[in-house]
Amino acid sequence: MTLLLPKKVTIIEVGPRDGLQNEKNFIPTAVKIDFITRLQESGLQEMELTSFVSPKWVPQMSDATDIISSCLNMKTRNIVLIPNRKGMERILLTPCRAVAVFVGVSDEFNKRNINKTTADSMKEVLPAIIALKGKGYFVRACISTAFYCPYKGKIAEADTIKLCQQFINAGADELSVADTIGMASPNESFSLFSKLRERFPHHMITAHFHDTRKMGLANIYAALEAGIIRFDTSAAGLGGCPFAKGATGNVATEDVVYMLSRMGIETGVDLEKIVSAIDVIRPHLSRPIESAFYRLHSSTE
Amino acid sequence: MTLLLPKKVTIIEVGPRDGLQNEKNFIPTAVKIDFITRLQESGLQEMELTSFVSPKWVPQMSDATDIISSCLNMKTRNIVLIPNRKGMERILLTPCRAVAVFVGVSDEFNKRNINKTTADSMKEVLPAIIALKGKGYFVRACISTAFYCPYKGKIAEADTIKLCQQFINAGADELSVADTIGMASPNESFSLFSKLRERFPHHMITAHFHDTRKMGLANIYAALEAGIIRFDTSAAGLGGCPFAKGATGNVATEDVVYMLSRMGIETGVDLEKIVSAIDVIRPHLSRPIESAFYRLHSSTE
Repeated sequence: MTLLLPKKVTIIEVGPRDGLQNEKNFIPTAVKIDFITRLQESGLQEMELTSFVSPKWVPQMSDATDIISSCLNMKTRNIVLIPNRKGMERILLTPCRAVAVFVGVSDEFNKRNINKTTADSMKEVLPAIIALKGKGYFVRACISTAFYCPYKGKIAEADTIKLCQQFINAGADELSVADTIGMASPNESFSLFSKLRERFPHHMITAHFHDTRKMGLANIYAALEAGIIRFDTSAAGLGGCPFAKGATGNVATEDVVYMLSRMGIETGVDLEKIVSAIDVIRPHLSRPIESAFYRLHSSTE
Repeated sequence: MTLLLPKKVTIIEVGPRDGLQNEKNFIPTAVKIDFITRLQESGLQEMELTSFVSPKWVPQMSDATDIISSCLNMKTRNIVLIPNRKGMERILLTPCRAVAVFVGVSDEFNKRNINKTTADSMKEVLPAIIALKGKGYFVRACISTAFYCPYKGKIAEADTIKLCQQFINAGADELSVADTIGMASPNESFSLFSKLRERFPHHMITAHFHDTRKMGLANIYAALEAGIIRFDTSAAGLGGCPFAKGATGNVATEDVVYMLSRMGIETGVDLEKIVSAIDVIRPHLSRPIESAFYRLHSSTE
C-alpha cells in the first residue's frame, strides 16, 4: 500500500469562538483582539472569530460586535457563528460576509443544547442558508455529534450523511463534521469521511476532532487518507464539550500543524506566531494548556 | 482504498521496567509487585518486568531479584532487561527465560547513554545473544533512537535496518523498534515499519512509541497499516526520556487498548484491571498521570 497524502491542507482556527466560549471567566475584549490578530498574522487563512449567541447564554461572546469591527480583514476568511434568527439579523448589520450555522445530528443532543429537535432546527436553519446565499454570504454548516452523542451513543453514518445532504441542497459551501465528544476511532474517521468525500466531491468538507481520548491526531491522519484536506483546530487546544466528563478541548492548532509539517504537508502557518498568540491568552485561561507543542516550545513554561 | 487492519494485536507492557526506571523516588518493592500482578491479571501476555542494570545507575531497579522471584508466572512472557555482561551473568542464576537487550542506532545517543559507540555495544551484545539463544532464551532486541536522536537528529532508515539485521543474524526473536524521543511522524512510522515488515517477514517486530508530541496513537495507527501487530505500551503512560525536555512517557497502555478496542481490534486486555493497577502505583509517582483513559475512568480522579 502506498500512502497518497496531500501536499497542502487548510487549517480553520476555531479557538476564538469554539475554544473561548467554554472559558468560564470573561476574557477582556482587548486580549481577544490581540489573540486573534496574532493568529491572523500566523498565516491562518480561515477563522471562527466570534458568535452572535445570546449574551445571556454565553457572556463570553457578548463582545461579538467589537470583535468583528476590530478583527475583520481582507486576508482571512472571518467566520461568525449565528445560532438562530436573531443572530442572522445581527450579522446583516455587519461587514462580515462569512457565517457558520450549527445543528447536531442527534435529537437528544440538540434538545439539550438548543431545546429543539434536529428536524425543527433544520426548519429554521435551511431557509436562513438560502437567504444568506442569496445575499452572497459564505456559509459553513457545522454538524455536531456526527459520530457519537453523549446521550444516545453511536450515530448512524446514514443519519449524518442525510443531514449533510440537506445542508448542501440549501447551498452551504462547507460541511464541518464534528466528533463533538472526542469518541471517534481512526477507522470511524476514515469510513465516514471517505463516504462524505465520495458523496460531495465538489464541496469543502472539514474534519473537526477533539482530543478527549488522545485519538485526535490519529483521526486526522485517517481523515487525510480519506481525502480530507481541511481541519478545524483550536490554538492551545482551547474548548471542549461541557457535556462530557474530563473532556479536553479541540485538537490543538500547533500540534496539528507540527504533525502535518513533519509529514511534509504545508499549512502556511508559522508556529512561533501561534505560540506568541497563546502567550497572550494564557494568563486569562481557567485551565492548564494541554498542547504538546506549546509545552515543549513556550519560553514561559 | 480499503483499510486492512488486523483482528488481534499483542501488547507488551513496559511500565514496570521502562516506565518506572524514570521515576525519581524509590517505589517500595511490595507496591511494584502488586502493580505487576494486577497488570498480569489484566490479560497482558508479555511484560518487561525489571532490569539487571547496576543499582548505582538506576536505584529504582535494585530490587530486580525480588521482583523476578515474586512475579514470574507461566501465563505471561516475563522479560528482564540485561544491559551488559554482568546482567547476563545475573540472569543465568534466575528462572527467568526471556531477556531484552538494548542498543541505540545513534552513536551519539549510545555514547551518552552507556559510554560506548553503537558498534562497540554490538560487539558485546551479539555474542551474548548467541550464547543466550544456545541456552533456549527468548531474546528481545530493543533498538532505541530508531527514528530520531536528540543530538544527531534524523536517523537514516538504512542505519536502523542494518542494526536490525545484525540482531536477526545473531538469533534475536523480537525487534522492538523505538521512537525514543517521540519525534516520528505517522508517515515515518509507516515507511520504516513497512520496510522492516518486508525485510523480516518471519520475525516479531514491535513498535515502541512515546507520546511526547501527541503523535503516539497516530503512529500506532500508521504502524498497523504497515502490518505491525505488536506494540510496546506503558500503564499510565509511565516513562519518558531523560534527554528530551518536556518529554511525556510511553504511549499509555489503556489509551492504546481503548483505541484498538474501538477499532474492533482485540488485545485480550481488561481495561478495568489496568485502572486498578494504576490506582496502586499512583500515590508513589512523582508526575501527574497524562493518560486520557485513566483521567476519564479513574474513581479517584
